[in-house]
Amino acid sequence: MSNLIKPRTLSGFRDYLPNTMIAREQLIQTAQRVYRSYGFSPIDTPVLEYTEILLGKGSDETDKQLYRFTDNGDRDVAMRFDLTIPLARFAAQHAQQLGTPFKRYHIGKVWRGERPQAGRYREFMQCDFDTIGTLANAADVETLFVINDLMEQIGFERFNIRINNRLVLNGLLEKVGLTDKSVGVLRSLDKLPKIGREKVIAEMVEFVGATAEQAASVLDLAELTGEPTEILSSLEGMLDGSEAGQDGVAKLRELFECCAKAGIPDGRVGLDLSIARGLDYYTGTIYETFLEDQPKIGSVCSGGRYDNLAGMFTKQELPGIGASLGLDRLLAAMEILEMVESASTPAEVFIPQFDASRLGDYLAIARTLRAAGLRVEVFPEAKAIGKQLKYADKKGHKFAVIAGEDEFAKGMWQVKNLQVRGDQSDVATAGLAKHLKSLLAID
Amino acid sequence: MSNLIKPRTLSGFRDYLPNTMIAREQLIQTAQRVYRSYGFSPIDTPVLEYTEILLGKGSDETDKQLYRFTDNGDRDVAMRFDLTIPLARFAAQHAQQLGTPFKRYHIGKVWRGERPQAGRYREFMQCDFDTIGTLANAADVETLFVINDLMEQIGFERFNIRINNRLVLNGLLEKVGLTDKSVGVLRSLDKLPKIGREKVIAEMVEFVGATAEQAASVLDLAELTGEPTEILSSLEGMLDGSEAGQDGVAKLRELFECCAKAGIPDGRVGLDLSIARGLDYYTGTIYETFLEDQPKIGSVCSGGRYDNLAGMFTKQELPGIGASLGLDRLLAAMEILEMVESASTPAEVFIPQFDASRLGDYLAIARTLRAAGLRVEVFPEAKAIGKQLKYADKKGHKFAVIAGEDEFAKGMWQVKNLQVRGDQSDVATAGLAKHLKSLLAID
Repeated sequence: MSNLIKPRTLSGFRDYLPNTMIAREQLIQTAQRVYRSYGFSPIDTPVLEYTEILLGKGSDETDKQLYRFTDNGDRDVAMRFDLTIPLARFAAQHAQQLGTPFKRYHIGKVWRGERPQAGRYREFMQCDFDTIGTLANAADVETLFVINDLMEQIGFERFNIRINNRLVLNGLLEKVGLTDKSVGVLRSLDKLPKIGREKVIAEMVEFVGATAEQAASVLDLAELTGEPTEILSSLEGMLDGSEAGQDGVAKLRELFECCAKAGIPDGRVGLDLSIARGLDYYTGTIYETFLEDQPKIGSVCSGGRYDNLAGMFTKQELPGIGASLGLDRLLAAMEILEMVESASTPAEVFIPQFDASRLGDYLAIARTLRAAGLRVEVFPEAKAIGKQLKYADKKGHKFAVIAGEDEFAKGMWQVKNLQVRGDQSDVATAGLAKHLKSLLAID
Repeated sequence: MSNLIKPRTLSGFRDYLPNTMIAREQLIQTAQRVYRSYGFSPIDTPVLEYTEILLGKGSDETDKQLYRFTDNGDRDVAMRFDLTIPLARFAAQHAQQLGTPFKRYHIGKVWRGERPQAGRYREFMQCDFDTIGTLANAADVETLFVINDLMEQIGFERFNIRINNRLVLNGLLEKVGLTDKSVGVLRSLDKLPKIGREKVIAEMVEFVGATAEQAASVLDLAELTGEPTEILSSLEGMLDGSEAGQDGVAKLRELFECCAKAGIPDGRVGLDLSIARGLDYYTGTIYETFLEDQPKIGSVCSGGRYDNLAGMFTKQELPGIGASLGLDRLLAAMEILEMVESASTPAEVFIPQFDASRLGDYLAIARTLRAAGLRVEVFPEAKAIGKQLKYADKKGHKFAVIAGEDEFAKGMWQVKNLQVRGDQSDVATAGLAKHLKSLLAID
């Protein structure tokens, strides 16, 4: 029997190999760049926390999904299952030092021991941004802009951000006298795409205790479609007399006005009053983001405004607004849409070794090219050139820079396009970096 | 009694607040950029692994430091305590697909339940790069170049990389007939800086069983100092007749020749035969890196060549070489050396709101500035301007861009240097981005 241990990962966990990881790292760096460009600051919190911190007092629903254990110091600890509760704990703990408004982003792994399914993992990355401590609608507008820039900078043009505002629905419920039945109304409304208008009305009447007229009013609102400005005008009429409702309409109106003023492309942002996303948690603006070419994968960036982040930890009221970029979902969509490079090396340029005694020269030219901003791999062994180029082919380098004794004597390098057979040229050392950069369209 | 849960982290764990985290993120991005520029590819592995994978068969020394538990599926699992064993598992598992040489970097958190001490944490970040599957000295030279570039790109000029090669010591031990006593010899030699030459020799004689002559030869070698080329010439004589020794000398010679050819600054790389770092693990070139202005914090980037990475998991021999950047140690040193910015916002530009009805204009100008590459925060509320500027002062924005009704009428913005009292100017919208970029020396 072999003494070897079988190399394997746990069920529901996975390795990221270079080609996937290169794309993931690019995605993360784009998100960091966009977040920073709005003045969001990075923070980090421990992966392990007291279980009490993560679960609160009495909650047990998430318990089963938790990686929870007793540490060597006899503490009841667990691995975080999201970044929101750590943010709440963090904000409460450091409130004095941070001040408000506090804008943070947090990109990190979280763990949930769910039953593994296709495309669902027990370890995954979250990529959240939030503005804490302000009720101003400016933060709601900014959140929308951040989502827009994230998607654009990642490389999407054909996407849609759908907005709703909980206040609008609240206003209507108040107006028709269903405020005390809102939980049931929402639960029924959520089934609209599946069971249709008539059945939703029937359910509201039968199980929630609404009149047919009340139910019809709710459906009329949820089913409003058209240009945002048209919908808003209709809403103003429907919500006449409700302060909350008019407040919601005014906030949405300001949001669309700011979009127009700041040049967010027409049609990019839609008003969708049927979005019920986390309506039990969110209290104001709500966001969902869909890819026009991959609508089925669902929202790739979602979030909203909430009333009080850290009530579990502090008496200080901390309202907030934020959203979360669905990194894994986006990556999957980008692979389907062929937006991900297949290379498993980040280096564009490959330098094979023709002559081992010239190692210093190969390393020196690579160093010069790197100083000019290129990414360059030197093969470590002077194997047969065919084998070295086969390696480059497998990794996905774009150009090879080759020199043997002749080339060294002439001070020339042979630049070979590894993706187009026969496309090659001789270039002097002095012009090599510039030549490669123009071929690669860098700078 | 309050129903609140006290917000706190576990002992030995910590939060990263914005100012520290901004510096850490910059450091990580610099490392990623340098690694990629050499063709190292990112990978990632799960935080949780089977305990058997992490500990191997029979090992228990690290056991006490391990965060180990039984998961809900009754598996014996643990959180990784380094990135080397996951790399071994990864390389063995994906060997076919990856091919060799395989160059990877991995930046991620690891956990060790050590007793917390000043500056030591139970959760910390590792930042490793390795080249797997080649014995070529080119990889050893490249490892040195990577270390050099890492330090330079992070912003250091005054640092020293100290090199040794295990083969040299092996050669001497072979020559003087101490090969079978090498473990004891190394253990004694390691005490040289503490107890001095005479006591080391005494120990070697008394406890290791060397003769005084043998011991003196070892010390003569370890204490060689001077220019690398001089030391190498002396070594050639001392190791005459030892194949391993001459091999080690030739490899070191090539390394220093390549440094000269590629323009690594003179004096940057030193030959230090007393480095005993992990000599039980490393088998060839060994690296340590010291800051000239903070030598006491120890090596900030260390590594070396090893014979077989993944013997626990596969029969395939996978020699490798790599090093690890000590992120936390470096950050601590950079703070002492005042190389870390104190700002707790990544945004240089701050836009206060003078007039809430102009929100769209403020957001639009911010958007224009961002498109030009600036990082801009718009304050979400039209509070008293003094309060808004106080916020910017606390966060550390560098310039404020202010407009009230007068400025809007004129199409001008007031640019105010937040760090120099009274330094301000009026700039038209069209020239604003360019003006700010020149003030900030961006591009």
